[in-house]
Amino acid sequence: MLDIALVGSGGFMPMHNRFLTAMVARLNGKMLLVDCGEGAQINLRRIGWGFKDIDVICFTHFHADHIAGLPGLLLTMGNSDRTEPVTIVGPKGIREVTSHLCVIAPVPFEPRFIELTPRGGQAVSFQAGGFQLSALPLDHHTPCLGYSLTVPRAGRFDADKAKKLGIPLFGWSRLQKGEKVVHEGKSFSPDMVMGPQRKGIKVSYITDTRPVPGIPDFIQGSDLFIAEGLYGDDDMLDQAAQKRHMIFSEAAALAKAGKVDEMWLTHFSPAMPDPGAYLESARRVFPNAVAGRDRMTKTFRFQEEDTNGR
Amino acid sequence: MLDIALVGSGGFMPMHNRFLTAMVARLNGKMLLVDCGEGAQINLRRIGWGFKDIDVICFTHFHADHIAGLPGLLLTMGNSDRTEPVTIVGPKGIREVTSHLCVIAPVPFEPRFIELTPRGGQAVSFQAGGFQLSALPLDHHTPCLGYSLTVPRAGRFDADKAKKLGIPLFGWSRLQKGEKVVHEGKSFSPDMVMGPQRKGIKVSYITDTRPVPGIPDFIQGSDLFIAEGLYGDDDMLDQAAQKRHMIFSEAAALAKAGKVDEMWLTHFSPAMPDPGAYLESARRVFPNAVAGRDRMTKTFRFQEEDTNGR
Repeated sequence: MLDIALVGSGGFMPMHNRFLTAMVARLNGKMLLVDCGEGAQINLRRIGWGFKDIDVICFTHFHADHIAGLPGLLLTMGNSDRTEPVTIVGPKGIREVTSHLCVIAPVPFEPRFIELTPRGGQAVSFQAGGFQLSALPLDHHTPCLGYSLTVPRAGRFDADKAKKLGIPLFGWSRLQKGEKVVHEGKSFSPDMVMGPQRKGIKVSYITDTRPVPGIPDFIQGSDLFIAEGLYGDDDMLDQAAQKRHMIFSEAAALAKAGKVDEMWLTHFSPAMPDPGAYLESARRVFPNAVAGRDRMTKTFRFQEEDTNGR
Repeated sequence: MLDIALVGSGGFMPMHNRFLTAMVARLNGKMLLVDCGEGAQINLRRIGWGFKDIDVICFTHFHADHIAGLPGLLLTMGNSDRTEPVTIVGPKGIREVTSHLCVIAPVPFEPRFIELTPRGGQAVSFQAGGFQLSALPLDHHTPCLGYSLTVPRAGRFDADKAKKLGIPLFGWSRLQKGEKVVHEGKSFSPDMVMGPQRKGIKVSYITDTRPVPGIPDFIQGSDLFIAEGLYGDDDMLDQAAQKRHMIFSEAAALAKAGKVDEMWLTHFSPAMPDPGAYLESARRVFPNAVAGRDRMTKTFRFQEEDTNGR
């Protein structure tokens, strides 16, 4: 079970009714935060999942509206008795930027850094704090990364096969966890009893960028695609492009090409008080588009299997 | 006419119903900000005085809850078409801390720094952006300054004397502004026609600190004393002292000794949801104590003169 919350839905500057765009994920008691603009901790507190279990913080890029909340967050995590290391992920330079920002807030735990330098527009996959992640280089004024989070799902366990092979009951759960079992001189491996990997859960987060060719593949099949749309109005394309951002219909075209289930638009311009008024321009292209709202939350579960057990 | 707003009234961490303690002053179209924690710009926007005219930003100290909002504020000021230099004031190190924080937000105007290093517990007076200010070293975990802002008021102009001296009418306003006038070979100076300086307006801002002996003199006669009170309950004295903060009754004792007109308490602990519940412990010592609220505003004018013209 994966919980996702949109921490904020604004861009450029925080406002009292719309904080800056960030996402938090909760999986098996661990939390992953993507981006942390000024005020992120205010909405994180209102979401109510706590601060202590934030194990990983990923940054898309180093503009203030995506990272200025880091020192305050780390301070609050320390005040929440966090003592275990926290993994901080971002484009090359994240270690240095963090050390600059944290001159005003001594970090009471060990920060571990993952600096990503994807080459030639290719995505890179990595693990951090138990999360399976990928990052894709985007097209902004400064090096910027999109992220996807995947919760993989093992294949189906074939109990009949396990019985036929004479695998003792105590070994079944270990095989299901991907471990080998040795019993009475015989060795059993998971591939002997596990079916092909089943569809897991995938959430993608793409901001701040122009559309780039790699995005549809990168977000392919996502259960949720969180995508920036600085402006809703198609007439604002030139302004969006100049700022290296997207309009709603561009994000929707990516959602369609990526065959995602659902798209939440976010990173709205402060000049657009009611993003919902422009939602139709996204829905014409991709019907399951939603205008993001601060602290919007959804829980994702593995898909139910059909009655034949397939 | 001096407008004062309490930008936020909380301490340690910003909350959606209580932002971090800061003060903004507006005088003759110029603005002065004291402290700028995470989210300060959100409440500054709600106060509605704009960002473009912030000429001076003073910092008490370099803890995140007092300065983390600086890069975002400077970015927003730039987006508000501010191009003139901004004076940034703080304890020694303010220039370096600012340069660290602003790696995430290029400052689109020239920052001018005033680094204060008061010696031996003595206050220092200085001018910045047309504001007359003083700073007093306080007692916190890190070097920390209290500030007072004074709007001086010239003495009364003696028109009879000016006539007797034969000063031409066109020179009167220049003398009132403190300038010299030369007419038909004679030189006239303001002291020849101006009475003794009259009571101006004074606002003092003291956070984060233990009570120190210099405070009553420093805040003496303030129209408004903005004072931290981390806890309201007298039983919390030990915890407050350990954190190098004050309780309400300690702030009230300073207000009384400083013969101020009015005190606004602020910098409340997140553990104290209703500071007003403890206000009595301040009012027993100093009756005109108020529990600060975010975006609380008051306008101060020169005192009316009595009918005898004194």
